[in-house]
Amino acid sequence: MNVLAVAGSLRASSINAAFCRAASRLAPPGLHITVCDALGSLPPFNADLEPDPPRSVTLFREAVGATNAVIIASPEYAHGISGVLKNALDWLVSYEGFVAMPVAVINTSPRAHHAYDSLLEVLKTMSATLVDEASISVPLLGGCVTEDQMVGTPAIAQQIRSALVALSTFLQLGAHPAPRFPVESR
Amino acid sequence: MNVLAVAGSLRASSINAAFCRAASRLAPPGLHITVCDALGSLPPFNADLEPDPPRSVTLFREAVGATNAVIIASPEYAHGISGVLKNALDWLVSYEGFVAMPVAVINTSPRAHHAYDSLLEVLKTMSATLVDEASISVPLLGGCVTEDQMVGTPAIAQQIRSALVALSTFLQLGAHPAPRFPVESR
Repeated sequence: MNVLAVAGSLRASSINAAFCRAASRLAPPGLHITVCDALGSLPPFNADLEPDPPRSVTLFREAVGATNAVIIASPEYAHGISGVLKNALDWLVSYEGFVAMPVAVINTSPRAHHAYDSLLEVLKTMSATLVDEASISVPLLGGCVTEDQMVGTPAIAQQIRSALVALSTFLQLGAHPAPRFPVESR
Repeated sequence: MNVLAVAGSLRASSINAAFCRAASRLAPPGLHITVCDALGSLPPFNADLEPDPPRSVTLFREAVGATNAVIIASPEYAHGISGVLKNALDWLVSYEGFVAMPVAVINTSPRAHHAYDSLLEVLKTMSATLVDEASISVPLLGGCVTEDQMVGTPAIAQQIRSALVALSTFLQLGAHPAPRFPVESR
């Protein structure tokens, strides 16, 4: 099973990006996690470009269409979804390969909830399949902010592993297999 | 008094962009409305770039810092703020010139409320001064979607004019003058 991990921040030292990399190292056998690096290269969404989308958009959609599930870990900016993440989602609204996609939403700042709640509403509106049992809050602030710290802190690593096992189980049960709609590269 | 009108959509035929242009034509004497065209050229927000922001960001901040108020008209995408608009706001979070800025938020799709509510929450978190009496819902769908139609439809034009007069009055009362923090162009 292939999973795409998407961080909503472009900061080099982003906790959410570190979470995605840590998750890829902690994945159980049979689950292959790729960290998405496309968000910074996507143009601002413009519906006028839909008939002939820029190549970066097509490549991003291909990556989404070829995966069995998506993990999203995103910061909250001013009580809202990061614009970077929302822009990427805007490019997926009209992409049928995202419909019914299993999505696990990770909250790395459990004290924050506005962006998390907004993100769940947006994903539901986009007809994603939210995988509740794999959507966890991980208190990563303080001394556990790098990939190595996350992997090396037993309680955190175990929490991440458990969520990934839950995602893997969900996918293996196949109740909501991700439809695949590959887009042709140009 | 100078006002910057910001549309959250980049579509050429965007109702919200048309609203901004119509508002600039309907502005009462003493209120000069400039339609912002910066959002499409802003890079994806990255806090790592803050120490030396790209020129497009500096120019956008200058435009905001030099204005007395901001009008925002934005579509709702998948029950959320458009990524394009949120990205622009993310670039203003750490810009002190936006603190206490009077902002009128226009809802051109009164049936939608998720993005509007999220936007109010974000703007409050950014310490903007929401001008309630100038924040209106305008039912622009149907036969009133272009700038000329808005200006030429008496009931709609009057509604827009009234909101702009309310904004002008608010600014003249000076209860919440926008602080000016011009950024030096590079």
